[in-house]
Amino acid sequence: MSLLSAVRADASRDVLRSLRSICDEQGLAELAARLADLGDLVRWDMKDFESALNALPARSAEQNVVTSSALHLIARGGKRLRPMCVALASRVGSGFSDQAREMGVAVELVHCATLLHDDVIDESEQRRGAPAARMLYGNAASIFAGDWLLVEALRRVRVARVEGTLDRLLAIIEEMIFAEALQLANRGKIDTRRESYFKVVEGKTAALFRWAMYAGGRAGGLDESTCKTLEDYGTHLGMAFQLIDDWLDYAGDEQATGKALFTDLREGKMTYPLLHAYEQDASIGTLLGEILGADEGDPARTATLHDALKDALQRTGALDACRALALSHADQAASVLSPLPDSRAIEALLTVAQATVHREA
Amino acid sequence: MSLLSAVRADASRDVLRSLRSICDEQGLAELAARLADLGDLVRWDMKDFESALNALPARSAEQNVVTSSALHLIARGGKRLRPMCVALASRVGSGFSDQAREMGVAVELVHCATLLHDDVIDESEQRRGAPAARMLYGNAASIFAGDWLLVEALRRVRVARVEGTLDRLLAIIEEMIFAEALQLANRGKIDTRRESYFKVVEGKTAALFRWAMYAGGRAGGLDESTCKTLEDYGTHLGMAFQLIDDWLDYAGDEQATGKALFTDLREGKMTYPLLHAYEQDASIGTLLGEILGADEGDPARTATLHDALKDALQRTGALDACRALALSHADQAASVLSPLPDSRAIEALLTVAQATVHREA
Repeated sequence: MSLLSAVRADASRDVLRSLRSICDEQGLAELAARLADLGDLVRWDMKDFESALNALPARSAEQNVVTSSALHLIARGGKRLRPMCVALASRVGSGFSDQAREMGVAVELVHCATLLHDDVIDESEQRRGAPAARMLYGNAASIFAGDWLLVEALRRVRVARVEGTLDRLLAIIEEMIFAEALQLANRGKIDTRRESYFKVVEGKTAALFRWAMYAGGRAGGLDESTCKTLEDYGTHLGMAFQLIDDWLDYAGDEQATGKALFTDLREGKMTYPLLHAYEQDASIGTLLGEILGADEGDPARTATLHDALKDALQRTGALDACRALALSHADQAASVLSPLPDSRAIEALLTVAQATVHREA
Repeated sequence: MSLLSAVRADASRDVLRSLRSICDEQGLAELAARLADLGDLVRWDMKDFESALNALPARSAEQNVVTSSALHLIARGGKRLRPMCVALASRVGSGFSDQAREMGVAVELVHCATLLHDDVIDESEQRRGAPAARMLYGNAASIFAGDWLLVEALRRVRVARVEGTLDRLLAIIEEMIFAEALQLANRGKIDTRRESYFKVVEGKTAALFRWAMYAGGRAGGLDESTCKTLEDYGTHLGMAFQLIDDWLDYAGDEQATGKALFTDLREGKMTYPLLHAYEQDASIGTLLGEILGADEGDPARTATLHDALKDALQRTGALDACRALALSHADQAASVLSPLPDSRAIEALLTVAQATVHREA
């Protein structure tokens, strides 16, 4: 194994380790112990997954700006939460197989494809604590790199021939695109409709978690009805995950997330804390309008407006409400699994749901 | 039928009509007669195809900037040469069926997806004689629209279940992306290697014609070996098509093509006429360097340099050489078909190859 792939294989362990240390600090000793068990259960699955992801360039004829863009993003690691869902869902069934590994690679590639295109669209400069691929290789290379990863993901799902997975993945990618379209249309607008927010989040985030659970379950030989249960878990997990993402954008530690605070707002996105704050006090709309219309070249003014917004979020309890809703989705994720017989994999899925709400990156 | 779909259904007839009038003017009376027969053969196939393409928005939940971007491009028509290849290939076999129609829609959607992404990458303002979709709905919408059409094409091929077509389409889209990557890497460089040029053209243009012929043949129930022959035809037709595109960029009529002359050069692309001219007279490299480095804001200087290049292309016989190579590929397209039994569809394919070299748009 090359040094690089050894480093990568440790990425998921590192994530678990950092989650564990957070739990220790916050006195969540039980969760820390559960995470240790989760780590033991999927460590080799995730190593297998990382090796397969690592072998990606060998499938392309040559190194070029497109493969370099894609590999730059992939090599930065990330949480690998979607492939972990695939691995655990497969273990609810007959276990982690080559087919499950390929589903895991596919879901990570689709995720990376959307990040590459999103970074071009949002003109993002940073991703995963490093320069975004487009800053190194240009926008054009990132557009093609996203196209490549999408096609590569579909090819893998096609070759693995796990029943139902290809049709659903095609449908889900379409769902993701239309959620992005809706987000794009709402950009910079103070859209206070809950249904707009939830429609975007279900499409852009929850849908792919749903597929990860379905594909893993199917690869593990589970029937449609059990997979439907796993899908429901995936939807709630995805919602919880996105709500914590929204929360981190206002309350997170920039060092840990590798992303500047207020990024969503700068990109004109109405996230849950803003939605809640507006519902509590509609006068916040004026402040949001001022922030969206503010001159980027006046950092003092921006800082004043951001401080006012932080106060407003505090005053209206918006950040706590966001976490509470995330927690509620994590609870729902756990409770939909209750009809399934208890097992180490099911316990691990409960742990993932709980840990998702406590993550700090 | 709505007015819009009636207009669209006539698009392919219009193309044939304009090709016929060119033939009349150029004294190619025999080709004109052959085109009339081709038109009779595929008219209803192409109407069927246009109706299916027209029904596209009904498949998406709602109208938005992404669907609008895609439909703006699709509604502008275009030559529909790839779906015509599908129709004719299917008629070499058992005939034009619903499956063949879906293959035709898929190939046009993939083609449109690449145009949407290319226009963002090349910062093109015009396409098919109208503003590019990105000028109306923005770059972000065009990126997602390209993603959407790609996924929609793959879904249709998946649903139609014509053996071998999905795997090949996935492989060919990957080939197209890597050809674009190569073109991107060479952009603005005076790369005088023939192999670079042919690798790009095979990937970005010929590959999709190859798939159109394969998919049509397969939908028509033909065996792998016959489809291989049709694929070879597609490759040569694609090469001829691209060479004429290259030629039109220097020798075409801007009104007819809907594209400004010298566009390829402005985008830093080494096309065949430049390659040939350089091979005849390496000093042209200096002129190309001056053009690529020229200040866009000095139109008088640009005009002088462009005139000098036109003279150089004339002097070295580059434009004639480009047409001659296109003609040679059209001839090869025709001759690869010779093992197949003669039929009206085969005659029509010979006509398409011949007409491709005489097109003026």
